[in-house]
Amino acid sequence: MSGPPREIDALIALMARLPGLGPRSARRAVLHLLKRRDMVMAPLAQAMATVALTAQDCRVCGNVGTTDLCPICDDPRRVTGEICVVETVADLWAMERGGAFKGRYHVLGGTLSALDAIGPDDLRIPDLAERVLDEGVSEVILALNATVDGQTTAHYIADALAASGVQISSLAQGVPVGGELDYLDDGTIGAALRARRRV
Amino acid sequence: MSGPPREIDALIALMARLPGLGPRSARRAVLHLLKRRDMVMAPLAQAMATVALTAQDCRVCGNVGTTDLCPICDDPRRVTGEICVVETVADLWAMERGGAFKGRYHVLGGTLSALDAIGPDDLRIPDLAERVLDEGVSEVILALNATVDGQTTAHYIADALAASGVQISSLAQGVPVGGELDYLDDGTIGAALRARRRV
Ligand SMILES: [Zn+2]
Ligand SMILES: [Zn+2]
Repeated sequence: MSGPPREIDALIALMARLPGLGPRSARRAVLHLLKRRDMVMAPLAQAMATVALTAQDCRVCGNVGTTDLCPICDDPRRVTGEICVVETVADLWAMERGGAFKGRYHVLGGTLSALDAIGPDDLRIPDLAERVLDEGVSEVILALNATVDGQTTAHYIADALAASGVQISSLAQGVPVGGELDYLDDGTIGAALRARRRV
Repeated sequence: MSGPPREIDALIALMARLPGLGPRSARRAVLHLLKRRDMVMAPLAQAMATVALTAQDCRVCGNVGTTDLCPICDDPRRVTGEICVVETVADLWAMERGGAFKGRYHVLGGTLSALDAIGPDDLRIPDLAERVLDEGVSEVILALNATVDGQTTAHYIADALAASGVQISSLAQGVPVGGELDYLDDGTIGAALRARRRV
């Protein structure tokens, strides 16, 4: 029995550990790359090596960039005094795609989780409290996921910041733009109903 | 609006072109890697660069390896005179996982397809005819997928080799209609090989 050569096997094993890929789809992806060694595989390896070498977490907000201070924290046109708290960098990018928020971010790096033994100190929550004091923040917007852990974390942060007197808000829950009621879960519809506004 | 930095955007775009990944799952995979820059991302980039540099198609059978002649063609313990014809290297690996075939392979690189304008000369079929004559081959086993294009290709090869007098057989029992070898369990492939029939 003679499977892929050792080097290719090692590559498949590493690819198979990516989220959304398993052994079979990793094999498929590697075979796809093997057919395009010069035009796709080598550039992809190069791009990945570059990012592995140059990526840095922003020392202020936890966003990922290629500098000590990320482009958002470093941008003088961003509104000061408004911090949007997100769980992950993926959520920060989603907020930026929306384009509606003009302030700065704070990336927690996850949510509180009793099950996974993740506490406030694992999540850059102490850094957030410090920023609120140091930066003269007037509003903290909690843009956490509408999951149990996300909401638990939101409540914890609201409590932790209560003494500072900063205004704390959270994203409105409701029907997504273009969303069809028939496809939404009941919780979403209930929340949308409770948060209804006059037109 | 400030999305991922240019280097990370470039990496996401390249990852999104892999089969089975789209823009969202590529972003997810890259964020996963960004959290594990030293332990996973750098080794993955290195493994990919190594393969891009060292991988070669075997000059005899079309299998992928790191040498001019692949380990199977180079292995004196493999039975000579039996060639198993497969569409892709993925199928060769699937056959090898089955472990039932002791001969050598011929990787076509696809199937005949009128729609995609893929003819015999695009598929290493002329090389196969040459090997049958040069290597004193007694049996050619057609292990092509049970798809329309796979079976069209099998018939074409059987016709092309008819004059040579070589025995031609094909995988039979166990391969479901429309089934692709790479998705079958090892036992099924072994059973199909043992029950192969002459065509
Ligand atoms: Zn920042
Ligand atoms: Zn070979």
